[in-house]
Amino acid sequence: MTDSAPVQGIKALLFDVFGTVVDWRASLIEDLTAWASVRGVKADWTALVDAWRGAYVPSMDEVRKHPERGFRKLDLLHRQSLDRLIERFGIVGLSEQDRVTITTAWHRLRPWPDAVAGLTRLRKGYIIGTLSNGNVALLTNMAKHAGLPWDVILSAELFGHYKRDAEVYRGAADLLDLEPRQIMMVAAHNDDLAAARKQGMLTAFVARPGEYGPHQSKDFEADQAWTLVARDFNELADRLGQ
Amino acid sequence: MTDSAPVQGIKALLFDVFGTVVDWRASLIEDLTAWASVRGVKADWTALVDAWRGAYVPSMDEVRKHPERGFRKLDLLHRQSLDRLIERFGIVGLSEQDRVTITTAWHRLRPWPDAVAGLTRLRKGYIIGTLSNGNVALLTNMAKHAGLPWDVILSAELFGHYKRDAEVYRGAADLLDLEPRQIMMVAAHNDDLAAARKQGMLTAFVARPGEYGPHQSKDFEADQAWTLVARDFNELADRLGQ
Repeated sequence: MTDSAPVQGIKALLFDVFGTVVDWRASLIEDLTAWASVRGVKADWTALVDAWRGAYVPSMDEVRKHPERGFRKLDLLHRQSLDRLIERFGIVGLSEQDRVTITTAWHRLRPWPDAVAGLTRLRKGYIIGTLSNGNVALLTNMAKHAGLPWDVILSAELFGHYKRDAEVYRGAADLLDLEPRQIMMVAAHNDDLAAARKQGMLTAFVARPGEYGPHQSKDFEADQAWTLVARDFNELADRLGQ
Repeated sequence: MTDSAPVQGIKALLFDVFGTVVDWRASLIEDLTAWASVRGVKADWTALVDAWRGAYVPSMDEVRKHPERGFRKLDLLHRQSLDRLIERFGIVGLSEQDRVTITTAWHRLRPWPDAVAGLTRLRKGYIIGTLSNGNVALLTNMAKHAGLPWDVILSAELFGHYKRDAEVYRGAADLLDLEPRQIMMVAAHNDDLAAARKQGMLTAFVARPGEYGPHQSKDFEADQAWTLVARDFNELADRLGQ
């Protein structure tokens, strides 16, 4: 957990998005509760959101295990998990359009309070981009909705692999025409940084201890000596001299 | 060349870049002449720039003809053409670093005077993105250098095909999760619009009669009844109600 001196030679900062940049849990609960109240649909949306996120890693593992079925983008995985959860939760009366509205709540997530200000500062000195399991449309719509000032949208979808597969980090370096050591991966998840470091990238950890609400069980702090550890994106900008 | 009434249902505007957004010829001549004067290298840079662009379509055709050799990004095609031209023009004393500097002049191109203002207006109502043969790094660096406010960088490189191959237009619609009819392709080149229309996209023509300087031989005007024809990006924003 020691931080190094100001880091030389970085050209691009790539950000994990769900949890690192946006507060998906609180946003989804608020968005869906408000929508359901107007729409007149009753459900335990908090429990549904937690179960939905719980289906996230298993759904990507399915894609990983069956490459012969082709890559499926995250919007589709979200929709398939949602359909199962609607049944399991016994929610009735939802139309196709309702299901689209619920699924695209992932496009309307709210940034953490420091995110836009920090990114805006960091953008002055570096290429800033996403490196997320979200698909390109999801990330593009989210950036537009939340005012995230990305220079470039990089997504697992472009590489046909989900993080933490090595192909995602290597593919990002190739598209940016940079050496991995010229890229700093920024994430609130230690395992994402470990996978980025394995490919030679620099790493910055920003804890988001509220990401999973009362269910947070890990990532309260850095568990390796990452290149940088910062409290939030503003401190990251301070540390990088922006 | 008739324009339709205000166009409904458009979600994204995708822009050709070289010639449509940036004035590659004047920028390259100015950039290389200034650099060469400091560096003390003598050459007819205007003739070199014209010959370099002349090699553009043939170099992409080579990629198209030999899929078994794999896709080569535009920076590499530019570099390979440059190496041949340096020899043909008898320019001596250029180091590897000099060749990199010359090749990346394509990353430092200047927008046409209306481009940034027009894009900034259009961005309020639509997703705006590139759909260019430039590779992702080139387009990202150019946007940063020129202040082009893209929401998303889409490139031939992502699809392993150069325009006017259908895969590029179809691939862009897929990544944005839009129907082709929800996308308007904007270009100063009639053949680019024809290829986009073939895939079901709407089309906007913006003439750039100075693109090739004294060598301009076509694209002075729309040669089909495109969805819209505008004098520049500000008029395009007017026409789209932004």
